Amino acid sequence: MTATAPQLWVNPRIHRTPYSPRVEAAGVSAYSVYNHTLLPVMFESVTADYRHLKEHVQLWDVSCQRQVEVTGPDAAKLVQLLTPRDISKATVGRCLYTPLVDAAGGLVNDPVVLKLADDRFWLSIADADVGLWISGLGIGYDVTVTEPAVYPLAVQGPKADELMSRVFGPAVADIRFFRFAKLDFHGYPLVVARTGWSRQGGFEIYLDVPELGLALWDALAQAGASLNVRAGCPNAIERIEAGLLSYGADMTRMNNPYECNFDAFCNLDRPIEFLGRTALEAVAATGPDRRIVGLVLDRADLPSCIERWRVTAGDHVVGAVTTAAYSPDLGCGIAIAMIDRSHWDEGTLLDVELPDGSWTTARVSTLPFPAALPVAA
Amino acid sequence: MTATAPQLWVNPRIHRTPYSPRVEAAGVSAYSVYNHTLLPVMFESVTADYRHLKEHVQLWDVSCQRQVEVTGPDAAKLVQLLTPRDISKATVGRCLYTPLVDAAGGLVNDPVVLKLADDRFWLSIADADVGLWISGLGIGYDVTVTEPAVYPLAVQGPKADELMSRVFGPAVADIRFFRFAKLDFHGYPLVVARTGWSRQGGFEIYLDVPELGLALWDALAQAGASLNVRAGCPNAIERIEAGLLSYGADMTRMNNPYECNFDAFCNLDRPIEFLGRTALEAVAATGPDRRIVGLVLDRADLPSCIERWRVTAGDHVVGAVTTAAYSPDLGCGIAIAMIDRSHWDEGTLLDVELPDGSWTTARVSTLPFPAALPVAA
Repeated sequence: MTATAPQLWVNPRIHRTPYSPRVEAAGVSAYSVYNHTLLPVMFESVTADYRHLKEHVQLWDVSCQRQVEVTGPDAAKLVQLLTPRDISKATVGRCLYTPLVDAAGGLVNDPVVLKLADDRFWLSIADADVGLWISGLGIGYDVTVTEPAVYPLAVQGPKADELMSRVFGPAVADIRFFRFAKLDFHGYPLVVARTGWSRQGGFEIYLDVPELGLALWDALAQAGASLNVRAGCPNAIERIEAGLLSYGADMTRMNNPYECNFDAFCNLDRPIEFLGRTALEAVAATGPDRRIVGLVLDRADLPSCIERWRVTAGDHVVGAVTTAAYSPDLGCGIAIAMIDRSHWDEGTLLDVELPDGSWTTARVSTLPFPAALPVAA
Repeated sequence: MTATAPQLWVNPRIHRTPYSPRVEAAGVSAYSVYNHTLLPVMFESVTADYRHLKEHVQLWDVSCQRQVEVTGPDAAKLVQLLTPRDISKATVGRCLYTPLVDAAGGLVNDPVVLKLADDRFWLSIADADVGLWISGLGIGYDVTVTEPAVYPLAVQGPKADELMSRVFGPAVADIRFFRFAKLDFHGYPLVVARTGWSRQGGFEIYLDVPELGLALWDALAQAGASLNVRAGCPNAIERIEAGLLSYGADMTRMNNPYECNFDAFCNLDRPIEFLGRTALEAVAATGPDRRIVGLVLDRADLPSCIERWRVTAGDHVVGAVTTAAYSPDLGCGIAIAMIDRSHWDEGTLLDVELPDGSWTTARVSTLPFPAALPVAA
C-alpha cells in the first residue's frame, strides 16, 4: 500500500485540473495518472483516508474521468453499437453503468453513460482513450464526438447528502441512485449525479465551467467544515471491500463482460445491434472460462499489488490477483482476482504467491465482501 | 526541471516493463506514465543525464512506445487511410515518421511506422490509445489489429554504434537512418532500427521476447562498461535543442500537421486516400494560422514547464510555450512554442509569462536550434 519511491514527473502531456491547487494545498502525498490527467490517490495514508471516508465526507478530484460526448441524430444508435446493455429504454436523467465491447467481445471500457437528451450522451470513462474508439467507429454516422471540458468532482461519504444540500439546496435529496439533476451553482446549471466510486454514498458534480473549480471546491469545504470534510480520493481498501472494479487493472480488453460479472448488462435477448454480439453469444452459450471473485487472504502484512499475483491450486495456476489490501474493518486481507471456472466457487481454498516469493492461503468470497466474514478456515 | 513532490502510485493498471528491475537498480529518480506504462524520465539529474547522453551512450527503457500491429490483406490500405504521408512506395525495412490525422485533420498521433512486410506494419506510438482508433476505423477492413508484447529498448548517444556492434556484430553498421534489420540475440531475430528520440545517434531494439529483457539489458551494460554506458532516458533539454516534438504536450488533436511543420508528410498531390484530406486541403490552401517554433528565452533560472506558458506581443496573446529548459551548451533558455502566424517569423521578439507571474523576453528561432546561437538581442 505504499507508493513507489520515484517521483512523478509532470509536463503539459499530463493534465492538471481546476482543483489541483486545492488538492496540493491539502497535502496530496501520491498521484496516479489516469486518462492523461493527475489523479490523487493518497493524502494522509491509505488507512487514515479509508477511516475518514467511512465516517465523514470527502472531496475527490476525479477530473480524470473524462467525458466523451456523443451528440447528433445517430447518437443513440452509435452508443448502442458500443455495448450489449440495452440503452433504448433509458430516460433523460439516467446514469447507466455500461460495459463497452469490441467486435471480439473484449471489454474496451466501463463508463457511466449519462443521457443528457435523446440525442446527447456523456460517457464518463475509465482509463483509455475511448474518444478515439468512438470517433473511429463513428465515421459514417451523423454524430459529433468530442471530449468537452468537464471536470467531475466527487463528494463521497456518509455525510455527503448533508454537505451537498447545504451547497445545492434541498433538491439534492430528490436525486435517486444513478440519476442526475441540473442544479444551480453561481448561476450555472451543473449536472449533479448520485454516483461515485465508493459505497459510502455520495455524488459527482460534472463541472463544465472550469473557471468555477476553485469556487466550487471552496464552497463545499466551507459548508462542510462542521462535517469534518476534507480532500480525499478513491480508496484502495474501500473499493475492494465494495467490489468496485478498476478497468485496466482488474479487467482489460482481453476479458469479456461475463468474466467481469456484467451478465445483467448483456441483454442478448433484446433486439439491439451492437459490436461483439456474435462473440458474446458464443460466451453466453457455454459460460465464461473464468470470473472475477473476491479472495480472503490469510495475511495481514500485504505488500502493494504493483503487478498481478499468481494464484494456484496444487501445481496449477488458476488465476491472478489484480488488487489487494488489508481491511481494518473486516480484519483480514482481501483481494480481487480473476479465477478459472474450476476454482471459482465460494469457499474454495487457493494459494497466492506474493512478490517476495512467500505464499498465503486464500478463500474465494463473493463481491462485495460480506460485511461480517466467516472465521477463516 | 524538477519533479513534483507527490510520489507516483503504481498498480497493475500502469504497466512495469521487462527492464524495470534494472531501471530501478540504476536509481531512476522520476517516472512519467506513457501509454499506461512506466517511462523513466530522470536518473542523476536532468543536466547530468544530458551531459552523459551527449558524451557517452545510454540504455533507455522506452517500452511505453507501444506497437500497434496492423496485418492482413487490407493492412496497407488501412494504414494509408490514417495519414497524409504517402506510404505506397515504402519498402520493407523502412521506418516512417507518420503523422496520423482524423477526419477534421486533427493530429491523432505521430508514430514511427515500421513496414515489416507488404501486409504487416507496426506503429510505434506516442501517448494515446491509437489501437482503439485503428480498431474502430478498421471495422469492415480485412485486417487484424493487435498490440503485441513488444518492448523497445533504445541505445542512444555518440558511442551507440560501437556498443551495438559489440553485441549485435558488424551488421549494425549497415543499418541506415530510419531503416531496420533483424539481428540475432540468443537465437531470436530482433528488429533493430536506427531511430530514437535524441539527435545523438543510436538505435531502438524492438524486443518481442519479453523473457529476454534482462539478458538484453545486461549484455549491453556489460559490453558497454568501457564506453561508460549507463541507464538513461529521453532528455528534456536535448530533445528541445533537437526540436523533437512530444505528442500530447507540444501538439494535440486540436492541431493540424501543418501547424507542427509536417508539411513534407502531407502528400496532398499524390492520389492517396486518407481521412481528413478535405480538411487538410483547406488548411494547405491558406496555410496554417500558427506553427511550432523555437524560442530563445532571456532567463537561465527557468522553472519546470508543468502547464503551458502564455506568450504575448504587447497586449495580445500570440501563443503558448509547451516545454522549456535551460540549455548548458547553448548558454540560454530554450523553448518549444505554438505561435500565431502574425508573430512566427524568425527573430521576432515576444514576452513569456512564467508560472510565478514574472516575465521573460523571447526571440523566435528555427528548430532544431542552431548549434551556435546569435547573441541575444
